[in-house]
Amino acid sequence: MQTLHIIKIGGSIANSDRRLTTFLKNFSGMDTPKIVVHGGGTAATDLCNKLGIPVRMKEGRRITDKPALDVAVMVYAGLINKTIVAKLQSLSCNALGLSGADLNMIPAQKRQHPRVDYGFVGDVQPEDINTYFIRRLLDEQVVPVFPAITHDGKGQLLNTNADTIASALTIALTKYYHTHLTYCFEKPGVLLDVEDDDSWIRQIDREKYDRLKDQGVINEGMIPKLDTAFEALRREVNSVHIKHVDNLLNDKGTELTL
Amino acid sequence: MQTLHIIKIGGSIANSDRRLTTFLKNFSGMDTPKIVVHGGGTAATDLCNKLGIPVRMKEGRRITDKPALDVAVMVYAGLINKTIVAKLQSLSCNALGLSGADLNMIPAQKRQHPRVDYGFVGDVQPEDINTYFIRRLLDEQVVPVFPAITHDGKGQLLNTNADTIASALTIALTKYYHTHLTYCFEKPGVLLDVEDDDSWIRQIDREKYDRLKDQGVINEGMIPKLDTAFEALRREVNSVHIKHVDNLLNDKGTELTL
Repeated sequence: MQTLHIIKIGGSIANSDRRLTTFLKNFSGMDTPKIVVHGGGTAATDLCNKLGIPVRMKEGRRITDKPALDVAVMVYAGLINKTIVAKLQSLSCNALGLSGADLNMIPAQKRQHPRVDYGFVGDVQPEDINTYFIRRLLDEQVVPVFPAITHDGKGQLLNTNADTIASALTIALTKYYHTHLTYCFEKPGVLLDVEDDDSWIRQIDREKYDRLKDQGVINEGMIPKLDTAFEALRREVNSVHIKHVDNLLNDKGTELTL
Repeated sequence: MQTLHIIKIGGSIANSDRRLTTFLKNFSGMDTPKIVVHGGGTAATDLCNKLGIPVRMKEGRRITDKPALDVAVMVYAGLINKTIVAKLQSLSCNALGLSGADLNMIPAQKRQHPRVDYGFVGDVQPEDINTYFIRRLLDEQVVPVFPAITHDGKGQLLNTNADTIASALTIALTKYYHTHLTYCFEKPGVLLDVEDDDSWIRQIDREKYDRLKDQGVINEGMIPKLDTAFEALRREVNSVHIKHVDNLLNDKGTELTL
């Protein structure tokens, strides 16, 4: 089986043209089939602010109403996705932007919750991902670039967590490739002290994760990311790393193990 | 050779959800390989207005500065493109949104002009279009959906006239298919009296076009559209029609002949 790298980059990387360009140079040099998944982070919030669209939160989670969805589609599937694709093309990397609606790649379910209406938010299952075209494209040396947008198959676009898309895609492709999933962000890995970038740990297994979580050591924002990351490992993804975007090509960062 | 339909729709069609849905139902029922090209029209101008981005004109043409380009990419390649793709998917039409940067489909040249800097505007040549992946995708029953965005191959996205993209794509594919190009908009065809929708003409050849243009009968906004349309005919496209979007499947509208 061939090796496949799936790299998820945090949306805030796209805020810095220099950092994004450096990342894409490193990424385009990777000599295996590869996929990028990206969020939109602060750019969507900035545009919402400029347009006077209030950011609505419920139980700590963002509600995606129609105006917020339109902004997410414009920023993630539009501006950030096409900026990445054009930059990769300039690096001789044959990129193709693919929302979950394109080629019906990632069908999602609008989130159902007994108390909270999250709005136009989609949840994805690895089993629903249409890997046929992804594999055909990878065979043609194409590099798929996925924004955090899916659809329900009935004409509705949905906002979907980029970490979850990366994990679900990797799980779905593990049948066909030796898969390596890397979450890149702006910290050097899982930190023992959120204030200290030198406190990153080299390895974390499920037991240690549960212990650190119980002790309140692991930062709250990291918990959903680590949950999806461990789920990928449990579903036989070959490796999962969490690292700083600048360390894509070296071995600094946190490796997850079962 | 197979028949291929390339349909260009005006951006303002996307302003009406009902009209867009009707068009896409008609379009998805067409039983040949097919391509949509769309603009963004008033939606981009509306967003520019909301964001306080001035619309800059020079010699009657819009200047695309960086903020205006970002809006065009968000609206054309993001919101409108993905809305069309998701709606087509709900109609069992396997749509794929493709800016000119995706798969390096449409390389363009930033417009050079001795006096006017048009900003991030790209001009395209049929010879530069990469038809390989378009043909592969059409063979797989995929329906490409092109927004009016291209790139220069050096990492820069460019705003490009959708009529020109439709014409250039059709010319480039005429080597491989019996091509039929249709410009759909919100008038029933070429009008002899711009105020009277019943004044559309069934057929117009180059000579009649030149005569009507000299007489000032043909509306100014129609001239670039008709010029690219006649260029397509001259370059051996099998047929070119200009018609109302609601008449996609019937024979009402203006047929161009040489």
